Amino acid sequence: MALVVQKYGGSSLANSERIRLVAQRIAKTKDSGNQLVVVVSAMGDTTDELIKLASQVAKQPGEREMDVLLSTGELISSTLLAMSLESLGYKAISLSGAQAGIKTDSTHNKARIISVSVKRILEEIEKNNIVIVAGFQGINQQLDTTTLGRGGSDTTAVALSASLKADMCQIFTDVEGVYAADPRIVPGAAKLDEIGYDEMLEMANSGAKVMHPRAVELGEMYNIPILVASSFSNVSGTIIREEIAMEVRNKVRGIAHDANVARITVLGVPNRPGIASAILAPLAEANVSVDTIVQNISVGNTTDFTFTVDRSALAKAKSIVDPLVETLGARECATDSTLAKVSIVGTGMQNSPGYAAMMFRTLSEQGINIQLISTSEIRITCIIAERDVNIAVRALYESFEAEIAKAARP
Amino acid sequence: MALVVQKYGGSSLANSERIRLVAQRIAKTKDSGNQLVVVVSAMGDTTDELIKLASQVAKQPGEREMDVLLSTGELISSTLLAMSLESLGYKAISLSGAQAGIKTDSTHNKARIISVSVKRILEEIEKNNIVIVAGFQGINQQLDTTTLGRGGSDTTAVALSASLKADMCQIFTDVEGVYAADPRIVPGAAKLDEIGYDEMLEMANSGAKVMHPRAVELGEMYNIPILVASSFSNVSGTIIREEIAMEVRNKVRGIAHDANVARITVLGVPNRPGIASAILAPLAEANVSVDTIVQNISVGNTTDFTFTVDRSALAKAKSIVDPLVETLGARECATDSTLAKVSIVGTGMQNSPGYAAMMFRTLSEQGINIQLISTSEIRITCIIAERDVNIAVRALYESFEAEIAKAARP
Repeated sequence: MALVVQKYGGSSLANSERIRLVAQRIAKTKDSGNQLVVVVSAMGDTTDELIKLASQVAKQPGEREMDVLLSTGELISSTLLAMSLESLGYKAISLSGAQAGIKTDSTHNKARIISVSVKRILEEIEKNNIVIVAGFQGINQQLDTTTLGRGGSDTTAVALSASLKADMCQIFTDVEGVYAADPRIVPGAAKLDEIGYDEMLEMANSGAKVMHPRAVELGEMYNIPILVASSFSNVSGTIIREEIAMEVRNKVRGIAHDANVARITVLGVPNRPGIASAILAPLAEANVSVDTIVQNISVGNTTDFTFTVDRSALAKAKSIVDPLVETLGARECATDSTLAKVSIVGTGMQNSPGYAAMMFRTLSEQGINIQLISTSEIRITCIIAERDVNIAVRALYESFEAEIAKAARP
Repeated sequence: MALVVQKYGGSSLANSERIRLVAQRIAKTKDSGNQLVVVVSAMGDTTDELIKLASQVAKQPGEREMDVLLSTGELISSTLLAMSLESLGYKAISLSGAQAGIKTDSTHNKARIISVSVKRILEEIEKNNIVIVAGFQGINQQLDTTTLGRGGSDTTAVALSASLKADMCQIFTDVEGVYAADPRIVPGAAKLDEIGYDEMLEMANSGAKVMHPRAVELGEMYNIPILVASSFSNVSGTIIREEIAMEVRNKVRGIAHDANVARITVLGVPNRPGIASAILAPLAEANVSVDTIVQNISVGNTTDFTFTVDRSALAKAKSIVDPLVETLGARECATDSTLAKVSIVGTGMQNSPGYAAMMFRTLSEQGINIQLISTSEIRITCIIAERDVNIAVRALYESFEAEIAKAARP
């Protein structure tokens, strides 16, 4: 008998009808002779509605209170799903994050899981219950409710899979898996049958929204195979797992993009040690996430320091960097909020410099200007104008299609 | 510094605007130098909406799951109220029933409080926090959420008052206090400044819906003075407390009525011991609440046995009693679902038989037929036709007005 952890996202549970469909899907897995722990997100728009309510009673709702408020969304969906299963004749029980043993630190709104005590879950499985766990939430040492922040329910599912030593962790969402490129831009893009953890991380960090990087990291740390699939169809999804047979595999996994990029460049900074830290430390302190960082080679005594942020963070970032221009003796601070990034991702690329050249040539053939380049072991990213991003993704997919196709169907 | 427990009902918290008004009212109490514990019900229609959701996913939702589902309503209102207070510059913290130390048995949907551990509440008061407690809910020994059933939030407030040895328990609702008769029927009915626990119990059990009898009982048991007042006005409410100076007080407190009465009479029952038990035991087993019970003096060898139930329970009660007619050798089972009860309530009446006579005369003068009479130490109840109830209440109020007026304003 296999122990399976499943996670259903908010769109899969958007209304009572969809909850009943999910219950039927769970029932099928149970009928196949599996033990089941199911993690749920809040129904559809519940979280947005709760946030709206909070904003109506307080300009800056306290983080502790916000956590209790938001956690009710998952309590509601977990009980409804348990009821729905019971009405189909299955034994089911809902557990809050606290009851499921999810213990976190006290960083409200984005708590980290410290430990998982699965005693209660195991007792309920022993009683042949299908265990429905409210995702996204935990409890701190003071027994206060915490929430895990973005990607929280995915993280709950992977953490429980690790602690329960589950045979499989299945993330059901509204897409059919991980694609080699966004199918809305590249209609024929291949769905990947499998992808490595690091590749998935690079894809996610480069804009593929299928799964939150944090949950992928946790999966990698505990080596949990994660299936990403649609709750609306029976198409087999994508399995995220440790790379196997790396040497014989193809090099490129997919094309990722993110059309929500803004850039800040500090021009003419006197070239001395400590520049990067002088600029980035105040940003980190203000909790501004910086993405790509590039320091151009200096000409003469000055250098240009560039980084990108989410577009929504640009105003805040600029207000922090502006005063530094004078402090650092730089010339000026320039920004551009109309950018995008496009990346090719694949474990196999690391020792094959030909891929970078092919990427740059493809973009150049389309007349697309590359503003910044950043590379990792398994990724090459170009920052380009937002207006060029769809053309870029399609052209890159075409250039690398032969590689991708073999990777998608080994 | 006084320790005050306040409770706000669902209509007082129906939307974000009302929540902000309640926050301002709490702030005022705090500014007067009080320590504050506030118990909240769910916002307006939240509970009904959750019940509807449950009915959409399951025909008979499980009681344990239902409790977790319903408990989210009070979690939501408690956090929103805490946020609203924080935004006014007050320190506030919301606590779930479990965090507030409300420990119950495992009778889901109508759990009884076993004990209250106020350690956490006292810690938060010590930190100068206004403590907002989610009413209506507790936790059982398995650490599962339970709900307290009807009148649950009132019960939470009174139980906390007792455990915290609060100086005052204030129940804020949508009426201005306890009236000597329903002001919708008797427009000039006096609001009582105070009323005894037992009188309030008789009023509540006789149809006055201001406060659930269960919370009043608890108040009496621990001798907690309870103020019932409106959250929408500054009119002083009614204090429920131990009768004082009973001998010098006036006799009648008020007129209560309930227009939702049905009657079952088993006619021609052979008059032998055990009849009442033979009829009532199966009803109790089926969880049918029986209200007034009257066994008429027997004529010859048979007697007539009559009891009343809520109209909604009539069909179920009849289905249980019908088969007993043959078993008991009775003649038939007759029912009437168009009845009401009207009562006069007052601690002082007990040794003054004149009040009963005055009540019967008043009804008779209005041409109202009395079907059943039932009395307690401090209450006289007549069952009459529903169509007569408004006339009866008005006439009785007029007959006893001099008594009531003195009682209302001592």
